[in-house]
Amino acid sequence: MTSTDLNRPICVLGLGLIGGSLLRDLAGRNHPAYGYDRSTASVRAAGREGFDTSSDLTGILSRAEEEGALIVLATPMPAIAGLLDALGEHAPSCGFTDVVSVKTEISQLVHQRGMDNRYVGGHPMAGTANSGWTASHKGLFTRAAWVVTYDHAENADREWIELWSDVVRLVATVGAEAVPARVAHHDAAVARISHLVHVFAETLAVVGDNGGTLAQSLAASSFRDSTRVASTQPALVQAMCETNAPAVVSALDEAMEILAETREALSGPEPDLSGLAEAGYSARERFEARHGARRESVSPIKISSRPLLRLQPGTKGWIRHLEHAESLGARIEIF
Amino acid sequence: MTSTDLNRPICVLGLGLIGGSLLRDLAGRNHPAYGYDRSTASVRAAGREGFDTSSDLTGILSRAEEEGALIVLATPMPAIAGLLDALGEHAPSCGFTDVVSVKTEISQLVHQRGMDNRYVGGHPMAGTANSGWTASHKGLFTRAAWVVTYDHAENADREWIELWSDVVRLVATVGAEAVPARVAHHDAAVARISHLVHVFAETLAVVGDNGGTLAQSLAASSFRDSTRVASTQPALVQAMCETNAPAVVSALDEAMEILAETREALSGPEPDLSGLAEAGYSARERFEARHGARRESVSPIKISSRPLLRLQPGTKGWIRHLEHAESLGARIEIF
Repeated sequence: MTSTDLNRPICVLGLGLIGGSLLRDLAGRNHPAYGYDRSTASVRAAGREGFDTSSDLTGILSRAEEEGALIVLATPMPAIAGLLDALGEHAPSCGFTDVVSVKTEISQLVHQRGMDNRYVGGHPMAGTANSGWTASHKGLFTRAAWVVTYDHAENADREWIELWSDVVRLVATVGAEAVPARVAHHDAAVARISHLVHVFAETLAVVGDNGGTLAQSLAASSFRDSTRVASTQPALVQAMCETNAPAVVSALDEAMEILAETREALSGPEPDLSGLAEAGYSARERFEARHGARRESVSPIKISSRPLLRLQPGTKGWIRHLEHAESLGARIEIF
Repeated sequence: MTSTDLNRPICVLGLGLIGGSLLRDLAGRNHPAYGYDRSTASVRAAGREGFDTSSDLTGILSRAEEEGALIVLATPMPAIAGLLDALGEHAPSCGFTDVVSVKTEISQLVHQRGMDNRYVGGHPMAGTANSGWTASHKGLFTRAAWVVTYDHAENADREWIELWSDVVRLVATVGAEAVPARVAHHDAAVARISHLVHVFAETLAVVGDNGGTLAQSLAASSFRDSTRVASTQPALVQAMCETNAPAVVSALDEAMEILAETREALSGPEPDLSGLAEAGYSARERFEARHGARRESVSPIKISSRPLLRLQPGTKGWIRHLEHAESLGARIEIF
């Protein structure tokens, strides 16, 4: 697949880490793309680097409408409802996707506005603890999983299927791997492997800090790595975890049960951590085995660790193919 | 301080990650040093690289006794009692230190054998998830904190003070920073910033694994970093946490209380993570501010982030100086 398969221009709303990196990658591949941010400082900084950007939301939406652009909502969750309303008013026929890390709430906002047929949910599993245009960079999405939701597929018309296909093409254009997932499954999965990670990192940071100066002086690389994401802006972590609260609570309950058992096993006259130590080691080994191909290698050729499923959107049985791909955590390509 | 200040040869018992790296650094600085491992494979591998090593424990201890060497116990905890007995028999006048990550239990073993006046506890805060001679390398200890215990100082004679000074010199010789701490304070601190980190990493690895193939496929760098130490051999994690069980349980209780509060705050109709998100962010910022000088920098000159206290062991008030240094997490130098 090449970028020429994607025929719509891309209009990126929000030029933070994700939106900014997306604009850089698209421009770097000569795909027509332009961006908006409410921060005039970000817009000016991007403009100085030669990017086509604006802080006039109405203007950029009118342009998107005129050009039949695919709109990418790349702001934090709290700004989404306002953007949807603006889309309804100024770009009423544009299809759109998003990069928000929780899919339930945004799907509901879209549904409440009767926009389901114009929307495909997305979530690139890429990021750093840094945020804003200055943190954005080319290549952020290389070989990253980029979830594309498909709950609407059963009720979809030709227009939505074309939109869905273009979102998958957009993902491929920036070097990411499209992984199909239903909204609820995505949110449950990221609660485990992302939101719980933030909650744990922040808890460790606090317990370490409570240890005072000696403990902080002794903290080394294991503490540094495991608390790294606690450097993320609190508002971003709140937006993720609070909008995905039921799934986060469920993952947290599972974790707290393990910790309670561990506490019990360490409290007796013969402290015994073997259960957790072995289970954790095996789980981590499986993770490494699955992701092995993406580890640093001496070979310049990087191979994806995800199985590949190719499909033709809209053909008979394509939803079953998507369900199969989802169950494998597979990447998909359109042919 | 230069390595010539350290006049005793060093006898390293155990050539794993820590012992092997210590031997490499000492040999690299031309300080007389030799090593023992019960694994003939490790001894042969080290020998092929030109290191003076043996798998004959009695032989190497007799040599240490003859040469007045400083012995470093660098095996995992389960082997320590046997080594202490061997030291009592074959190297009865040598002073010794250790690198075990928990100090209470080894101090008790030493005390039970009436060896307090020959022993100074140590713990280098350096390591990777890998172990064994093949994982050892030069420079592992550069700017790492290396705890040196001093509980025995109040009852110490001239011989012990000389031994203590030589352990501090050994630490400096390999580029580490000697941080004085009492046994109980050390064990409480490492429970927070190291052992709890292992328990959390293993718990996250298990909860992520329980999410199945989709969750594992979506797991990205935050999950990878926060579960990294779950790759440590389970036996090593068990040895650390089980021998430090009371302090680990105490740190775990503190963490579980935070998690329980977080669960509560996320469970209501208005989920709210602000408390933890802000506390975790601030704690992590303080950690970064403290360790800032050790971050990667464009400058070739690296400056320690720990305050420096210089002292003369055995002089009036030196124990108060040590207590002060401990409360600051400071590094010490002998003048």
